[in-house]
This record gives sequence, structure tokens and C-alpha cells, in this order.
Amino acid sequence: MLDLKQDEAAATDASALAARYQAVRDHTEWLAEPLQDEDQCLQSMVDASPVKWHRAHTTWFFERFVLTDGVAGRDPVDPQREYLFNSYYDAVGPRHARGQRGLISRPTVSEVGAWRSSIDAEMARLLAAGGIAPHCVDRIELGLQHEQQHQELLLSDLQHAFAAHPFPPTYRGGERWLGPALRQHAPQWLAFDGGLQSFGHAGVGFAFDNESPRHHRWLEPFELSSELVTEGEWLAFVEDGGYRQPRWWCADGYALVQAQDWQAPLYWRRDAAQWSVSSLGGLRSLQAERPVSHVSWYEADAYARWAGARLPEEHEWEHAVERDDRCNQTLDALWQWTGSAYRPYPGFAAASGALGEYNGKFMCNQFVLRGGAWATPAGHARLSYRNFYYPQQRWMFSGVRLARSL
Amino acid sequence: MLDLKQDEAAATDASALAARYQAVRDHTEWLAEPLQDEDQCLQSMVDASPVKWHRAHTTWFFERFVLTDGVAGRDPVDPQREYLFNSYYDAVGPRHARGQRGLISRPTVSEVGAWRSSIDAEMARLLAAGGIAPHCVDRIELGLQHEQQHQELLLSDLQHAFAAHPFPPTYRGGERWLGPALRQHAPQWLAFDGGLQSFGHAGVGFAFDNESPRHHRWLEPFELSSELVTEGEWLAFVEDGGYRQPRWWCADGYALVQAQDWQAPLYWRRDAAQWSVSSLGGLRSLQAERPVSHVSWYEADAYARWAGARLPEEHEWEHAVERDDRCNQTLDALWQWTGSAYRPYPGFAAASGALGEYNGKFMCNQFVLRGGAWATPAGHARLSYRNFYYPQQRWMFSGVRLARSL
Amino acid sequence: MLDLKQDEAAATDASALAARYQAVRDHTEWLAEPLQDEDQCLQSMVDASPVKWHRAHTTWFFERFVLTDGVAGRDPVDPQREYLFNSYYDAVGPRHARGQRGLISRPTVSEVGAWRSSIDAEMARLLAAGGIAPHCVDRIELGLQHEQQHQELLLSDLQHAFAAHPFPPTYRGGERWLGPALRQHAPQWLAFDGGLQSFGHAGVGFAFDNESPRHHRWLEPFELSSELVTEGEWLAFVEDGGYRQPRWWCADGYALVQAQDWQAPLYWRRDAAQWSVSSLGGLRSLQAERPVSHVSWYEADAYARWAGARLPEEHEWEHAVERDDRCNQTLDALWQWTGSAYRPYPGFAAASGALGEYNGKFMCNQFVLRGGAWATPAGHARLSYRNFYYPQQRWMFSGVRLARSL
Amino acid sequence: MLDLKQDEAAATDASALAARYQAVRDHTEWLAEPLQDEDQCLQSMVDASPVKWHRAHTTWFFERFVLTDGVAGRDPVDPQREYLFNSYYDAVGPRHARGQRGLISRPTVSEVGAWRSSIDAEMARLLAAGGIAPHCVDRIELGLQHEQQHQELLLSDLQHAFAAHPFPPTYRGGERWLGPALRQHAPQWLAFDGGLQSFGHAGVGFAFDNESPRHHRWLEPFELSSELVTEGEWLAFVEDGGYRQPRWWCADGYALVQAQDWQAPLYWRRDAAQWSVSSLGGLRSLQAERPVSHVSWYEADAYARWAGARLPEEHEWEHAVERDDRCNQTLDALWQWTGSAYRPYPGFAAASGALGEYNGKFMCNQFVLRGGAWATPAGHARLSYRNFYYPQQRWMFSGVRLARSL
Repeated sequence: MLDLKQDEAAATDASALAARYQAVRDHTEWLAEPLQDEDQCLQSMVDASPVKWHRAHTTWFFERFVLTDGVAGRDPVDPQREYLFNSYYDAVGPRHARGQRGLISRPTVSEVGAWRSSIDAEMARLLAAGGIAPHCVDRIELGLQHEQQHQELLLSDLQHAFAAHPFPPTYRGGERWLGPALRQHAPQWLAFDGGLQSFGHAGVGFAFDNESPRHHRWLEPFELSSELVTEGEWLAFVEDGGYRQPRWWCADGYALVQAQDWQAPLYWRRDAAQWSVSSLGGLRSLQAERPVSHVSWYEADAYARWAGARLPEEHEWEHAVERDDRCNQTLDALWQWTGSAYRPYPGFAAASGALGEYNGKFMCNQFVLRGGAWATPAGHARLSYRNFYYPQQRWMFSGVRLARSL
Repeated sequence: MLDLKQDEAAATDASALAARYQAVRDHTEWLAEPLQDEDQCLQSMVDASPVKWHRAHTTWFFERFVLTDGVAGRDPVDPQREYLFNSYYDAVGPRHARGQRGLISRPTVSEVGAWRSSIDAEMARLLAAGGIAPHCVDRIELGLQHEQQHQELLLSDLQHAFAAHPFPPTYRGGERWLGPALRQHAPQWLAFDGGLQSFGHAGVGFAFDNESPRHHRWLEPFELSSELVTEGEWLAFVEDGGYRQPRWWCADGYALVQAQDWQAPLYWRRDAAQWSVSSLGGLRSLQAERPVSHVSWYEADAYARWAGARLPEEHEWEHAVERDDRCNQTLDALWQWTGSAYRPYPGFAAASGALGEYNGKFMCNQFVLRGGAWATPAGHARLSYRNFYYPQQRWMFSGVRLARSL
Repeated sequence: MLDLKQDEAAATDASALAARYQAVRDHTEWLAEPLQDEDQCLQSMVDASPVKWHRAHTTWFFERFVLTDGVAGRDPVDPQREYLFNSYYDAVGPRHARGQRGLISRPTVSEVGAWRSSIDAEMARLLAAGGIAPHCVDRIELGLQHEQQHQELLLSDLQHAFAAHPFPPTYRGGERWLGPALRQHAPQWLAFDGGLQSFGHAGVGFAFDNESPRHHRWLEPFELSSELVTEGEWLAFVEDGGYRQPRWWCADGYALVQAQDWQAPLYWRRDAAQWSVSSLGGLRSLQAERPVSHVSWYEADAYARWAGARLPEEHEWEHAVERDDRCNQTLDALWQWTGSAYRPYPGFAAASGALGEYNGKFMCNQFVLRGGAWATPAGHARLSYRNFYYPQQRWMFSGVRLARSL
Repeated sequence: MLDLKQDEAAATDASALAARYQAVRDHTEWLAEPLQDEDQCLQSMVDASPVKWHRAHTTWFFERFVLTDGVAGRDPVDPQREYLFNSYYDAVGPRHARGQRGLISRPTVSEVGAWRSSIDAEMARLLAAGGIAPHCVDRIELGLQHEQQHQELLLSDLQHAFAAHPFPPTYRGGERWLGPALRQHAPQWLAFDGGLQSFGHAGVGFAFDNESPRHHRWLEPFELSSELVTEGEWLAFVEDGGYRQPRWWCADGYALVQAQDWQAPLYWRRDAAQWSVSSLGGLRSLQAERPVSHVSWYEADAYARWAGARLPEEHEWEHAVERDDRCNQTLDALWQWTGSAYRPYPGFAAASGALGEYNGKFMCNQFVLRGGAWATPAGHARLSYRNFYYPQQRWMFSGVRLARSL
């Protein structure tokens, strides 16, 4: 997990909130620091956004949902910025096509920087003035959590863009940018009895709407691995012909493997006789004890079947990780694919208004990932967190922890 | 439900099985009877198959999985037929591309008919000889259930192909071919307490592997509608601009609605001021009390949200329909979309060998439908049955029953 | 050239015209004779049409442009038939999508046959009545030439459809269906001085509008090969890596070769160590002296460059073939690609009305082929004939004759 | 025509060549001057390249084909630069995918600028040293002509990229950036007798290989318009429904018009009741006397047919413009579409080696444009110049001059 200067506790009073605000905002800038302006404009696929866009969109979020909505008499967001930097909120209005974000040369990188500063100054005045309504505090907290999500996206999108360069630049040097920390322990199967249990956000501290309501679920007995699957283990799957045997794969997954000629995880490269892995820290050798990352759900599911296991259900994951501290690398290594389709919890209802679109409208066709990644900002992840991606996606910091039924 | 000459009870002894075998096989032929040879060769999209292909594929299933696997010394299936009429069994070997089934002019329709007769004669001899191993009886029963599935597919595929003709032929005349029976009762909300309940196939009679294992599930209190949504109710959604307002739709669904300019269910046609509906029985007026059919999951989900409700979970549906006989049109009108992603039940494991591919490899990216349709062969549907389709598909006999949380 | 019972001379009086009409129409039926109804409905790609469609469209052409236009009080064409069997005449009205012709199961094959007979009877009455206006005679002649074009298309489309079957049927047995006749002479370079020459249809007998006006053109000195390129010669190009070396290809051609992984002409198949060729007469060995067929312009152009030559300009071809009877296999073996883009001759103007669309609107993006093929009906080809196809197409009866500048 | 500081006469001695070299190179930099670094990286479609890429590629051209090929002992081009900035020379080696040029964030804009300076310094030393071989002088001249082509491409590509921005930036202010100069004269039909004439580069001064060999051609009598078609004239075509009537269009063109819903030239915008035109100088009103630009061949051909005329053949254009000085706006307004497919002149042979790919491999599927545009560098255009584009392309500076046969 990144060593951020961010306060992990909830900021309940204005000065703490102001400090936390500045720390989160500064961290985004720190992430952009090593980049050339040209790097910040790259969009290498429709699912990814330029670094500049992330910096602008998160700023728009505060301007739109905190300042404009919450400060009497404040001017609305400039319509051009609203059009360019609204991500997907239909209730806000029409917006720039997602796949065309790389074509927004203006505002420039430095103009976006200046905009960030001016909004930060305005936010600082608001926070210094005191007497902020609880509703507004919630919006600020949501904006900070939102910005932290984009901090991680910024890194995954940048990694993808750099990997599309025939001679990929290195983002930053040092062990921490090579991927999740090496596995320290031999994997164990940890057994759980299941039964009727409670799940979801328990009500203390921030959580997204999709982690609620708290609800019951019956679990059958199961086992969960104490460790993440590693590159060394995955290599055995590759070398066993795993990517060429339909029996390990669901039908949609194998069709994709063939259509796109997948032979290994996204950032693996084979040169002559050996594999290397491209990372934000540059190209490195495949490392037997490094947890394997950048795998799709299709691959995770196929690997699990090959390994005589399966992916955990999201409720199993939450139950086990909460109860057994022998589970390693849970929140700080890689997001872990589950076998659970991303659907609303029983009784879930999206909020009204634009922010009701935050999570609710994405609750189909995706799978849940649990945990958190080395690239996740410190303090952002928690046990009830529900991340979600499409089964074919693999440019994010995804990994695999196995389960099996008893 | 079609008035078939099929014995609904399980055929446990050889002569009953022989009679049931012939009844099911004859029904397929009866379905093809009104068609010209040219009609039987139509493939109007990759998801649909020609009638001739259905007749051949179901025959191959018996030849391959009963006769070849089960009769000592029997010749294997002719390799050309195996290549042409294997649907998706990777373990059997390579096969003809699914989207090219319309290009198989040979064997001709009458050659396929002759093949069907010869396999039926061979099956009759096998069944008359007696002493069939239980394993083989199971294979025959699976073959019959499989053929019944294709009887329904044959109709949905044919309807799609005829609808692609600029001047669509009528398949058969008469009220029964116009769609599901008219709704007879005003809808009521039926309330259920939920709690810890048991689900899945209880072990009596035939069931597909995906209905097992029997397992527990906790349900929160909910209500289920006693009736299906009708064309008249759906029209109100259309007229309220339902297909043009993103707030009712999940994001993927609305993107599809825009990309394909969906404005109503698949077979609705607007002429000047009024709507009509194309059916196997010809073009008819929209009917206020006819349950709406041929809607995708995206549409069903959006309609439910617009109506202030939601789709039932598959466990809710099973629980409610099993317990409350005020639920109408459950198994004999339309398959009913649920909010449940199609995933394995806890403890599910696919069988080994080719038949393990029957259901298991499709358990991602689809949603479960429960019940049965007017086009489903009599005796084929049951409460634990799990049908499944992709959320964008709508050429099958799908409908909507609403639920809501209490 | 097919040994047809067609009168090659222009039929100028009514009884000769009636006989010629019936001979041409009968030949179409003879071509369809060996086919199953199912074969007649195949459409294997958007450029090809079903045999049934060819039989119907040519019938529509007479009904629409001779009977309806020319016979007082005659009923118009049934609107459904007009919609289904109009090929591309915008002035006639809207029409069925070209790529969906395989989905027209109705009218059936036998209904189309009956329609053909009834139109033939009506035409026979018209021709027997005498006193046909010259304008109407011209329309009938155009209809016959049009039907002859479709006789050849019918064969090329059928060959493509059968080749798409994993176990291709044989259309007819016998040497004549294996392709163009074997080359009988060693190739010679025939030299021509060029100079200012006249080209185009000289005004005697039938010609299409695109062969006029007669016009002058200056030719530089050149040589033309007396023979067509053979399969044996083409094999040397393949074995020299011709399909893998960009230097022989124009840029668009090489991009296509790579995208579609072309390695040889369309109907060549490599099994283990040797090549065979699929034909209407079945699969046969590659034959060194058989003129190579089913090559695209891109391939013809690349082959010519590899061979140190070039394709002839259409004016060169016409000039040389007209003057030197040492040119072999000119009209009866294969259409011969030229280096000339298909553009109007100086002073060309399309006729007004629907028939003005016959050729004029296709005069861009295609290349001219000259000569005629073994599958061209007897008497249909002539020296001024301009056939045309897109440079990527190769399912027609195309071949190569080389030229070079002096 | 841009008022460049470029010497239009051929530079035959070293110091003149050095001066000309620097003037051309400086002009590229002047074109990039108003742009932000972010603007220079935009690639809005596969046919267009980023400004930075143009600056780099033209530099690579000198380094590769002058310095590396021509200076003994000189190091080869850095392999990464060669891979990134080789445009399409197969003989040089593999290269970066054309559609991915917008993803090359490194080298940065300023690094490319530094590379340009260093190559310029090296070139200056070479030119100052004297004694350059004639072969090498030719290469330098080709490099300069090449760079001038890219200066124009740079502007058309930039215009396209800016137009893709929802709030397009203005490149430079001032009348000269609004498009071609206003038409000053009423159009006249100028008549020409034709006959046997000579065409192609006459051998004095620089010309590309595709302008040779000098050759004869017979022309029929024709008329050419003295003027270009204007926006006002084109508006009448639009308002007459020209884009909705297939009869004016070739078949491929009309299919494209429908598929892409073309309703006017590329940069026309309709707001409420009036049209405006986006340009490098910003959005302006449609101007009746401004020559219409950014039209495809399909549109030009359709317009000509609607206007009762046709496009001139390239030989007609060359003949007429050379002989009649009443032809206005020939080289300095817009490239003028001709009806001539881009094919080699009689006797043309591409040079051997990489530079033989310069023009030769593009001689199919494109049409010739003659003249020159307001954005063409001064001194670059000439009467024998053959520009060429695909018939669907329209982002370049293309316009229309009509002809008709007598």
C-alpha cells in the first residue's frame, strides 16, 4: 500500500477535514509529478483515461457536487469544463465521449493544474469558515474517496498507456513500483464452517452505497487460501497449456482467449526462452513469489479450475478475512476476483439525483473484487469494499486468491 | 403450454420409455410439418439455428451419447455428421462454426428426415431388447429433455427468421400461436416472510445438473406479483418515454438501447398511430391483457425500476411460486427474468466428459429465467428449472413478473 | 465456353427472337437442374446471391422492363416480388437488403420456377403477336444479355457457397467443370507498335453502354503474352514467398494479404505437402498447365511485378487481341485483369431512367477485366466487353495475362 | 499560398541549398509555433498524424536517407527513432503502427525539437563542407520537397484534430487562415480542342517520380471552368437535397453518405437556420464566394453530375491550365479532384530500394488531384504535380473545378 500522508481516520471536524482534503489532493499531484505533459494526455483505450483528465475530473467533482451544490450564490461550473470532465452522470447533462478523452488538448496540463489550485483555495476557504452542514461534509468525504479511487485508476491507466509504447518509459524507480510485495508464507487452506452470517458495511466510518444494507447470508462450509496465487504458480498453468485447453474455461472466456490470442497475463512478455513482466517500475524478470497481477476474471476462473479449486464468493471472502488473521496480503497487494456477480445487496436502493448514479447503474455484467491493491491509497480499502470490473478486463491491479467447498 | 402427446411422468420401464421416446421425437417432426424445406434452412442470426439443424443435432445427440457410447460394437457417428451437428462439445472434437449453420445445404431436409427415422428405428430396437443399464436410461432421458429444449428453440429461432422476411409468413393459424394466454386476474402483491429456506432440485424426477445441489439460502421479506406484466402495462412505459430516459436503465442496457435504437419489445411494430405485434400466428394487434414477451433483461430491469419495483431473485421466485398458488401463469406462459446472475449453486461441480459441458461452461454473463413458456413442451418445465440468457437477448419466450422488498 | 443451345447471332426478327429468348431462359434452368432446393437458397457472402434469387431476379427484369413498361394495360409487378427481386435500381424503389437474400425462404424454389414459366408464357405470347416496337426489342435483348450475365454469376456464387461447406458437394462431373481448358502452347511475347488507335464498340450487334462511345487513344509500344498465367507458374510465386514480401504488392493489397492471411488463390487448398484446387467439378490436383483462376487484382498485380512484367491496359488488350490471332484463350478461358481502373469512356453518359443505373453508377473503385470465361455463356463475350470487379474480389472467373512496355 | 521565406528556384549550389534547407526546416517550426505541446500530440484518426510526429518523421527522413546513406562512417539512426518515425518504408524495416502515433508520448515535443536542431546542425556542416555528390543533392532536394508535403499535412491533420474538440481552439487569427481566397471572377467555360498532346514532367526542375515519363495522350474536345466551385454554389446542391438523392452519386459514394449520414462538406456546421464553417482561423459564416473545400471525391463527382458537368481528367486539367491563363486559382487555392484514377504513367517504373516506395505502391484505389492549395508551401506546387487521395477522404485541402465534354 502506498505510504501516503493521508489521515486514515475519518475527519470529523473542519480542520481535520481541511488537512485531509489537502493531503488527498496533494497526493494526486505527487502521482503526476514524474510525468511529462505529453504523458498526461495519453489515452490508450476506451476504458482508460488520461492522467490530466483524472486530475480535472476529480476537481470537477468538488466544484460540481460540493461548491456549486452547497455554497449559496456560487457560480455554476463553466459549461465547457462540465461537458469535458463529467464522467458518466446523465442527470448532470450531456458530456464528452469517453473514448475521445485523449483528444482534449485544451485545457492544457498546466491550465488543469491552475484550476486544481483555484478549487483547492476555494475549498480551503469553505473549510476554514466552519459551520459546514453535515450533508456537505458527507459530500466532501465522498469527493475524497472518489479522488482516491481515481488515484489508483490513474496508475493503472498510465501503466496501460506506457505499455502501448514500443519502448515503454519507466514511471518511477524502486521496488515498490514493481508490483505487489513478494509472498512471505507458504499457502495454507483455512477452513470455515459457514452458517448464517451478517455482511456489508456495519455503519462505522465511510462506505460506498453498494456496501449496504447490512444483511444476512447463509454460507456452506468452505476453505480459503491464506495466500495469493503467484507468478510462479501461474507459469505452471501457462506451461501446462492452460491457455489452449477449453476445458478450464467458461465458454465466453475461451472465445476471447482465441479471438485475442491471449497466452499469459496482460503484462507478461516472452523473449526467447524466458518471461519478463512490464511494470510501472520498468521491465523485470518473472518472479516466482510475486503475486500474479493483471489477470481477467476469465483467467482467474480458469486458473482456479485447473488448480482444482474455485474463486471465493464475495461473502465467503468477507467472512474469512474478517475472522482469520492468517489471511495474508488482503488489502494491500491486489484486488481479488470473486465468483460473485456484482449485484445489489438485498434492499439496496440507489440515492436520488446525480450521485445515485455513482454505483447503482453498473450492477450488471461485472464481477466483484475484494480487498485492495498495493496501488490503492492508504486508508481507502476496507473489508466490506466492493470493487467491480468486467470479466474480460485486466489492466487494473487484479489478482487471485483461491477457495474450495468442503 | 403445448398440448403434446408426451407422457409427463418419468418413464421408468423400457416400454414406457420407448413410448415416451417416440412421442418426443414425433413432436419435433410435428413442429416442422408446416414448413417448406427452404424455411427449415434459415439462420437469421448467430444465436439462432435452422430448423433442419435442430432436427439433426437432436438426432446426433442420441446417436453420439446413447448409441455410440452405450452399444457395444456400434459404429461411431459418421465424422461429417459429427462435425456438422455437434453444437458446442469441445470434448467431442472440432465442429462447424455456429454462425455458418445456414450454409449447410447438405444433408438436405429429406436426408435429415431419413436419418432421424433410422436412428429412431435403432433406438426402438435398443429399447425393445430390454436390459438397458441405468446409466443408459439416464442418457436417454437427458436426450429427451434435450430434444424438448430444442423444440422450444426451434420455435423461437423460426419466429426470428420469419420476422426477418420483409413479408413474414405465418407459421400456423389459431389463437394458441399468438403468444401466452391472456391474463385472467388483476395483479396482487403476494407477501412472503423469507427466512432460511431450501432450494434446488429435491431429488425426485429428472433435473439438469445446474439445479443442484439442494442448498440453503436466507431470504429477506419480499412481495411477488401474482401476474405477469402485460402488453398494455408495457405500452404505458413506452409512452412515458421509458426507452429514452437513462435513469431507468443500467448503463450497459442504455448504451445498447441507443446503439440499436430500441423503442419497444422485439416484435412490436408501429404503423402510423398504433402498435401491432408479430407472432408465430401472424401479425396481431397489441392486446392489453396479453403478457408482454420477447423482452431483454435490460428492458425487464428498466421496466421494473420505472414501475417502482424490481425483478425477483431466483430464490425468491422459487420460494414464492412453490408456496402460493395465487401465483398465476408460472410455468406455461413465459420464462420470467430474475435479478440473479447465472452462477453455480454452492457445491456445484460439472460432470466429467463431454456432457459436463452441458450447462457448466455457460455460468457467467447470463441471467436466470424461471418458469416456462407457452412454447415449452408439456411436462418439461418445473419449479427448480434454471433457464439462462444474456441480458441483451430477447428472441426467446421471455416475460416479466415483478417483485419488491418489504 | 459452355456449349449452349443459344443462337449467337443477333435475333432481329420475332420468331428468331422468341427462339433465342427460350434458349437463354432454358439454359438458366439447366444450370439449376443438378441442385437441391436447399442449395438454391445459399448465400455465402454479401457479394453473392442464391441461385433461386438469380432465377427470380432475371424473371423480374423481363416482367418489369419489358412487360410492365412495354405492354399497354398490363398489371404492374406484384409489389412484394418487386421489393424482393429488384437488385439495385434506386429509380424503381426500395428493395430488400443485398446481404439478406439468403433469408428469403418464400417464394419457394418451386414457386419461383412457376413464376418463371408464367412470365415465359407471357413473353411467348408477346413475341408471337408480332409488331414489337424496336425499343421493346432492345429491352428484350438487354434482358437476355442480363440473364446471361447472371448465368455466369450463378455459377461463381454457387461455387463460393459450396466451398463454404466443410464437405463441399460436387456440382457436376466431367472435365469441363474443372476450370478453364489447359494451356496448349508455350507463352510468347507478342509485340505491338501502338500509336493512335480506335477503341470501344464499333456499332454492330449488341453492346452494353459502358463499351461506348467509340474513341481514340494513343498507345506506346508494348508486348502482350500469347497465353494466360498457369497454376504451375503461380506455384513458383507462392513458393518464392510471394505472399509474404511487400515489395511485390501495392500497399492496400499487402495490408489485405496480411489481415486475411492469404497464402494462395481463393480455392487452393494445401494438404500436407501438396496443393489441390476445389472446383465446380470437385477437388482436383493443382495442374501445371491449367490457367490460374480466382485471383484478385491485388494478386494479379503482385504476380506481374514479381514476374518482371505488368498487367495490360484495357486498350492494349483490345488492340492486341483484335489484331493478333496468336493470342490464345482470350474469350473462353478466364476474364483477364487489366491495369485500367473502370471509368467512363470519353463522352460517356448514362441513359436516363432506371436502366441508366445498369453500369454507370459502378464506375469507381473497380478494375476492368477483358475477355470472357469458360463459364461465360456462348456468344455473350466480345472484344469490346468491359467486365469490372473490386481489386479484392476473387470469387469470379478471373485470370491473368501479362504485358510489358517496350 | 503561404507567404514563405523559401526560395522557389532550385538550389543548385551548396550555399543556396543550405539556405533553402534552413528556410524549409524553419517553416515547419514556424507552423508548430502557436501550438501547445499537448496540441502537437493529437491524432484524431488513423489517416492523420500528430504535429510532433510530422516534425520527427521529416527529420528522420534526412537522417536516414541523406546522412546515414550518404556520409561515410556516420552512425545509423537510433533504432528506436527509426521504428517510431519510419512512415511506411517496408524496405527500411518494421515500424510503429500508423494508428498508434498519438500514443508516442516520448520523445517529448521538446526532445523532438532538440533532435531537429541537432540534425540541422549536422546537415549544415555537410552543406558547408562542399563537394556534395549530385546523388546526395537529389536526396536533399527530395527531403525538402517531402518536408513541404508534411507542412501541408501538418495543417490538415491539425485542423481535423482541433475540429474533434467539442470547443475547437483557433490555430491562428487572420483572413489567411479562413480558407482559400475568395473567388474574384464569374465562372466561364473555357473551350479546348484536344488532340494528341504531351503530358508529364518536362524535365526542368524537381518533380516526383509519379510525374514521369513524359508521354502522349489523345484528348477529345472539352471545356473547363475558369473558376472553382464555391460554398454558395454548393449550398444550392445541399438545399436541393443533393445528399439524399442516389441518382447523383456513384453507388459506393451513396452507400457511404447513408452509412455516415453525410449532409454537407466535412467542416460545415448547421446551427438552427444557418450554416457556418470551421477553419484553422476559427468558426466563420458560410461565404458565397469562398471556394468550397474539404469535400471528398464522392461529393465532388456527385456535385458535378448534379451541375450537369463532370470532373476533368487529369490530362485535361494539365493541358488547359498550361495553355489558358484565364484559369484562376489553379495552384494556390485548393487541390482539384479529377476523374482520373491514380495509376502509373505509361512506362513508369518505381526506383529500387526504399525510396521506390515513395509513390509507387499507392497507385491503386485513389484519385488524382491537381493544382495546389492555399496551405501548400510556396514554390512546392507545379502543373505536372499529381496529388492523390482515396475517394472517401476529405480532411485535406480539396476542392472542385468542373469540366464538360463538347
